[in-house]
Amino acid sequence: MAGYTDTKDDHLKRLRRIEGQVRGLQRMVDEDKYCIDILTQVSAAGRALQAFALELLEEHMAHCVAEAIATGGAEADDKIKEASDAIARLVRS
Amino acid sequence: MAGYTDTKDDHLKRLRRIEGQVRGLQRMVDEDKYCIDILTQVSAAGRALQAFALELLEEHMAHCVAEAIATGGAEADDKIKEASDAIARLVRS
Amino acid sequence: MAGYTDTKDDHLKRLRRIEGQVRGLQRMVDEDKYCIDILTQVSAAGRALQAFALELLEEHMAHCVAEAIATGGAEADDKIKEASDAIARLVRS
Amino acid sequence: MAGYTDTKDDHLKRLRRIEGQVRGLQRMVDEDKYCIDILTQVSAAGRALQAFALELLEEHMAHCVAEAIATGGAEADDKIKEASDAIARLVRS
Repeated sequence: MAGYTDTKDDHLKRLRRIEGQVRGLQRMVDEDKYCIDILTQVSAAGRALQAFALELLEEHMAHCVAEAIATGGAEADDKIKEASDAIARLVRS
Repeated sequence: MAGYTDTKDDHLKRLRRIEGQVRGLQRMVDEDKYCIDILTQVSAAGRALQAFALELLEEHMAHCVAEAIATGGAEADDKIKEASDAIARLVRS
Repeated sequence: MAGYTDTKDDHLKRLRRIEGQVRGLQRMVDEDKYCIDILTQVSAAGRALQAFALELLEEHMAHCVAEAIATGGAEADDKIKEASDAIARLVRS
Repeated sequence: MAGYTDTKDDHLKRLRRIEGQVRGLQRMVDEDKYCIDILTQVSAAGRALQAFALELLEEHMAHCVAEAIATGGAEADDKIKEASDAIARLVRS
């Protein structure tokens, strides 16, 4: 079971909204809309994607990482390293 | 005419690929894929969105901003201020 | 005891290097160096600061958060929430 | 003459404040302050560095880039490409 099972519907709803934002961007490009207006929408889609990632990460730490730590051993260290690497990718992207 | 008219097809292709990535994320959530794998894909989609924005911005500066500056006057200052604000939004998002 | 006690010297060395980078920026501005060269150095200092934050965060999760989870209770949830908030601030800054 | 000559004092003041923030970080590490509090200060220093970069970039576009465009020729294209590359480095760092 993934750590986000309870919030799956919210995540799907959020991702569908982001998909809509990306389709909106295609429409703007297709209709030769002004670059700056497109860029504003790109920033909004980027922030929405980031908010999704942060929520997923928090759930992952509260469930998967916490369980691994409660169980202990090498698995716990691995999970922490893995989460830290994912955070680094997010911070740098 | 928008500054990106020559590259419109490339932009649309790129955005459709990003749309595919966001739909892939929905599939991953729907199939209870592992959080960390989802986060890796979110970072990839975020970087793709960022690459699109940077390309659009460069074209905007090379066309719209450059033309306004060549014409001169208040319009030029406005375009530079507007581009700077869009850059700030991108850097912060 | 903070989670980074073993690596304190490394952190201090790293921060002194960042301080040197910021002083280097002052020198560049003072000597009217070219904007783009200054911006390159700002990016380098920003990345160094980010690398420091990511290392500190990883240690924090491996020590403070892991201990709180091993102990269990409300403290564990608080630590996870607190770490998630710090991650969000990093991702957004 | 660099594009930021009029605002040199403001930039130097701002950079000295950032230097102070980085020295404050060293003090916090040295006194074993709590990781999360240190991370909050790192985010603040990162944002201050970013704000400095954005201001410098805006001045650069309003002066150096605008002058090159007004003069025209290959120099103008080079300046726009160079500014775009600097923006990409900032967005990605």
